[in-house]
Amino acid sequence: MNNAEFLAWLHQAIPLTEAMQIDELEYTGYSVRLSAPLAPNINDKGTGFAGSIAGLATLCGWTLLTLWLRQRGVEADVMIAKSEQRFLAPVTERLVAEARLPEDSVVQQFWDRFQDKRRARLPISVTVGGAEVKLELFGDYAAIERTR
Amino acid sequence: MNNAEFLAWLHQAIPLTEAMQIDELEYTGYSVRLSAPLAPNINDKGTGFAGSIAGLATLCGWTLLTLWLRQRGVEADVMIAKSEQRFLAPVTERLVAEARLPEDSVVQQFWDRFQDKRRARLPISVTVGGAEVKLELFGDYAAIERTR
Repeated sequence: MNNAEFLAWLHQAIPLTEAMQIDELEYTGYSVRLSAPLAPNINDKGTGFAGSIAGLATLCGWTLLTLWLRQRGVEADVMIAKSEQRFLAPVTERLVAEARLPEDSVVQQFWDRFQDKRRARLPISVTVGGAEVKLELFGDYAAIERTR
Repeated sequence: MNNAEFLAWLHQAIPLTEAMQIDELEYTGYSVRLSAPLAPNINDKGTGFAGSIAGLATLCGWTLLTLWLRQRGVEADVMIAKSEQRFLAPVTERLVAEARLPEDSVVQQFWDRFQDKRRARLPISVTVGGAEVKLELFGDYAAIERTR
């Protein structure tokens, strides 16, 4: 499944991602960029709706861990367990979220535990905005291997 | 503006609230309940999409402070400044969020400061779920009086 196919699957599986018109997904192996136009995600002040911004950020971290696991042949249920969000400034243009894996040692620890227990948690940082960060999200994502 | 009128205004001002089909709003003077059906807010696992759940909770706290201020004749821009969210269990039915004001002394402190500085922050707790809480959100909301 390439990036475009994954995005099409997202729209079908999570209808709100279609309502948000998320139209760009880029996965590099260690980061994910998700992006959506401002118009469908606007609030009463004409800037980005906090629910859309936080939702895009939450989904961005989720997509990163989901794709990272799939790359390793693992189908897992990935869920956010907790998150902390700081809204630093209004979003006045296209919403662009970027999620990045933590440092290698943390990823390795997650992967060792996942292979041992078939479930593990990974902390992922996500920002929304470009040069100027508008939202910082620190999320803990849980992955549980799917048994069939 | 009554509850139904406020909800209609929300749908128009924040299009994602219409996509989420938020169809119930109850304001008591010290709490707000917002609710939406599961179907438009579903994820790939057939349970509530974290982005929808967190978005509904964020909006619920925002609505509480906005309506509380309007009741006092104040038109303010209300924005979430930061939040902490704990996802405790999947949402398997209608999304119901409930936001409550903090204890009276904290509200009084907020109101004194707001009248003095025309801006202040209020911490608001929100839960999603009913008897069994599925999400806890602790948000800091900033209110800034609108000058015309």
